[in-house]
Amino acid sequence: MTLIPVIMSGGTGSRLWPVSRENHPKPFITLPDGDNLLRKTLRRASALNHVTEILTVTQQSLLFKTEDEYQKEAPLSVPCHYVLEPVRRNTAAAVTAAALSVAARHGNEAQILVLPADHLIEDQEAFTQAVQEAQIMVAQGFHVTFGITPTSAETSFGYIQANQLSPVSKGFKTTGFIEKPELRVAQDLIQSGDCYWNSGIFCFNVGVLLQDLALHAPEVLRTVEQAINNNTSITLSNQVTRLDAKSLALTPDISIDYALMEKSDLVAVLPCDFSWNDIGSWRAMSELVPEDQFGNRLIGEVITHQSSKNYVQSKSRLTTLVGVEDLIVIDTSDALMIAHKNHSQGVKEIVTALKKSAHPTHLQHQTGSRPWGTFCVLEEGNNFKIKRIVVKPGGSLSLQMHYHRSEHWVVVSGIAKVVNDDQELLLDTNESTFIRAGHKHRLENPGLIDLVLIEVQSGHYLGEDDIVRFDDLYGRHH
Amino acid sequence: MTLIPVIMSGGTGSRLWPVSRENHPKPFITLPDGDNLLRKTLRRASALNHVTEILTVTQQSLLFKTEDEYQKEAPLSVPCHYVLEPVRRNTAAAVTAAALSVAARHGNEAQILVLPADHLIEDQEAFTQAVQEAQIMVAQGFHVTFGITPTSAETSFGYIQANQLSPVSKGFKTTGFIEKPELRVAQDLIQSGDCYWNSGIFCFNVGVLLQDLALHAPEVLRTVEQAINNNTSITLSNQVTRLDAKSLALTPDISIDYALMEKSDLVAVLPCDFSWNDIGSWRAMSELVPEDQFGNRLIGEVITHQSSKNYVQSKSRLTTLVGVEDLIVIDTSDALMIAHKNHSQGVKEIVTALKKSAHPTHLQHQTGSRPWGTFCVLEEGNNFKIKRIVVKPGGSLSLQMHYHRSEHWVVVSGIAKVVNDDQELLLDTNESTFIRAGHKHRLENPGLIDLVLIEVQSGHYLGEDDIVRFDDLYGRHH
Repeated sequence: MTLIPVIMSGGTGSRLWPVSRENHPKPFITLPDGDNLLRKTLRRASALNHVTEILTVTQQSLLFKTEDEYQKEAPLSVPCHYVLEPVRRNTAAAVTAAALSVAARHGNEAQILVLPADHLIEDQEAFTQAVQEAQIMVAQGFHVTFGITPTSAETSFGYIQANQLSPVSKGFKTTGFIEKPELRVAQDLIQSGDCYWNSGIFCFNVGVLLQDLALHAPEVLRTVEQAINNNTSITLSNQVTRLDAKSLALTPDISIDYALMEKSDLVAVLPCDFSWNDIGSWRAMSELVPEDQFGNRLIGEVITHQSSKNYVQSKSRLTTLVGVEDLIVIDTSDALMIAHKNHSQGVKEIVTALKKSAHPTHLQHQTGSRPWGTFCVLEEGNNFKIKRIVVKPGGSLSLQMHYHRSEHWVVVSGIAKVVNDDQELLLDTNESTFIRAGHKHRLENPGLIDLVLIEVQSGHYLGEDDIVRFDDLYGRHH
Repeated sequence: MTLIPVIMSGGTGSRLWPVSRENHPKPFITLPDGDNLLRKTLRRASALNHVTEILTVTQQSLLFKTEDEYQKEAPLSVPCHYVLEPVRRNTAAAVTAAALSVAARHGNEAQILVLPADHLIEDQEAFTQAVQEAQIMVAQGFHVTFGITPTSAETSFGYIQANQLSPVSKGFKTTGFIEKPELRVAQDLIQSGDCYWNSGIFCFNVGVLLQDLALHAPEVLRTVEQAINNNTSITLSNQVTRLDAKSLALTPDISIDYALMEKSDLVAVLPCDFSWNDIGSWRAMSELVPEDQFGNRLIGEVITHQSSKNYVQSKSRLTTLVGVEDLIVIDTSDALMIAHKNHSQGVKEIVTALKKSAHPTHLQHQTGSRPWGTFCVLEEGNNFKIKRIVVKPGGSLSLQMHYHRSEHWVVVSGIAKVVNDDQELLLDTNESTFIRAGHKHRLENPGLIDLVLIEVQSGHYLGEDDIVRFDDLYGRHH
């Protein structure tokens, strides 16, 4: 049976701020082991049996970043397709779009496996086994949710009630969904013995799903169908479907649980035990790091004195602790977060406040990624800004022009091919050029190693929006 | 009576790390009010009556930095003299050198007022009054120590016992010195009612002091006399005496309390009450900042959530607190320190560890000061280093050459006069030049506003010691 894993790379994971940012969400965060959740999810999906394609549903702005991550896993044995959301919608829209996209290519008999991109699953074998069992249940006509056996009365998860009297292969029909219960309710649910955490992993038959959506969520189905039909495939590849923004904007902003699973008679839960962790807080993240003799878990250059049971993650600066315990310290180049372990959920409140005040640290890091590589603002001063620009081999910035700023470029590593007004030149390491305001210019890396360039911008207005793009490898014209 | 205030600018104040560094000691730290202790001490000294000169005893490496601070207070009504220590010695050597230096210019009848450069005194009027009273006691033949009425059983101060039966003007003869007592001893001392904190402020008659040193600390006197006699006055000014390093190295490394005050019969204590604070820890510093409704004292961009009674000082980065209390958070560009308020003395242990491992953060900040201005390392990479260089109007770097690195200079503010090999050129804002390795070069600011220049260094060796100086305004040739 054709199985298409659908990687859902949606939310931001604001409880992992300041490492997660709106433009650098949770699936992209580097974990203590150097890997990230997105690549782990991709590998998990491609290791399954009978996979002929992997579909990723993500925000339009994250396409290049996602492709970059996937390329690190190359060569993949299966093609990757993308559905891009130009506006954020909840999981109902994403699952529906995935189903329609898969149905168009593989027919209504195909099965999809919905995989959130920000979960950790330790036991691949048990996971593969569970997927096989889910596929059998799906073939029997059910929507399958993967239920995790609860280990504590968590209040930040949803719970699924299994009808132990109605077994379905290795699972059960469900009798109810309980979203983020209060502590006492969660305790009762666990006591009952027939409840599971809702992992957000689902398996569907595409045809059955679409029929059931027509019944329970017709508005979602109708608008997402429109968004697919009016899609604009982008220039790079026909494996990318960009949903139509206007149609998608009309889609109800609800979860697939709320839109379908709580209403449908076809839902069954498969109890699973493959060591699942949604890394929903810094506290959960800290547990991935081994502790020292004082119970401290430390990443980076850290010196402690009379301190214990702390988690520190600090990559660019010496961090010292004196006489403190149970702290979570997350240091990034433009934002520092210090939380008590028991308040690690409160980080969300900080992000809400930052978003409200449009503070740049909720949106992005000082180092940004682009299709051609990365840039990092080293310093901003009065009428000047300094950036480190790294261009990947073969990468090329658009042919562009600025009205208000001139730029000095110094190559400190690699080689650059530069268009500067009517000149075309090769700049070797330690050579430089000066781009006057108003002059068209382009930067390319024709070499085989990264090009590292220091750009000193100078002018009375240095906003990123002072850019006119004439030609762009990656289809960006504004 | 001639009174020469002697500003003693010696120690590092390691309990105020990471803001204090060996090359940026406590007197230079910017206080919450924007001022620093060194300038406050200078103003305190110059506000006294009958002052004809101010003498500063400090480390040789801090001369230009000290002069810079003093210039911010200009015009001063009195000339400033300096005694420079090429090696660190304790207060006995510094006081002796000051006495000899003053005796040579003003004779043995002059009085000196020894003022540590790192104390805060709120009540200038009470202080001026106390100095007048001390001068009367000195005229009666005594060495006067300024005793502070204790407000708590501090264990980090020295205590002076007053002989209440032997009044001397408004003070008393002393019966003993107790250095940093244990808590119980400190409590007893306070109970006794005749003990004062040793402020480290002293008033002496120079002739009486030198006679008494000959009696109680002849080795100190002899070696410091040698260090003065073999001094090398530096080129800039005849107001600067640089002690001879070899002679000074032979001087016992002891405090004036231990060398003289504990032994002499001529010591009297003057009880004072001018609101004295030695800012001996971050906890003491925090109390200079007003608290918000949650008892937090915050400097910089700080967001708190369910947090109280914290002190945060963060100048270049957003800092956020979630569910924490009683923390001290000090953030600098290359080092972060988080301490519990009750452990603020433990910071010293961190500095000791850093010093032992020769960690750069014990020694200096990323922004360094030079006679001509400041420089800041913005980034160091593989074979490149980027600096922001600020040259004061009229400032000039030495004519110099590097064997292993070339330099790109981009002027981002002001105007630069540049020698580059055999060329001399003026670079306006937004102009640049390239200095090849092996080429002599010099950078000057001929303008009336600060020159800001971005330097991109490139080469296989970028150590600060790759410099050959040919000519230097400030007498530095190595």
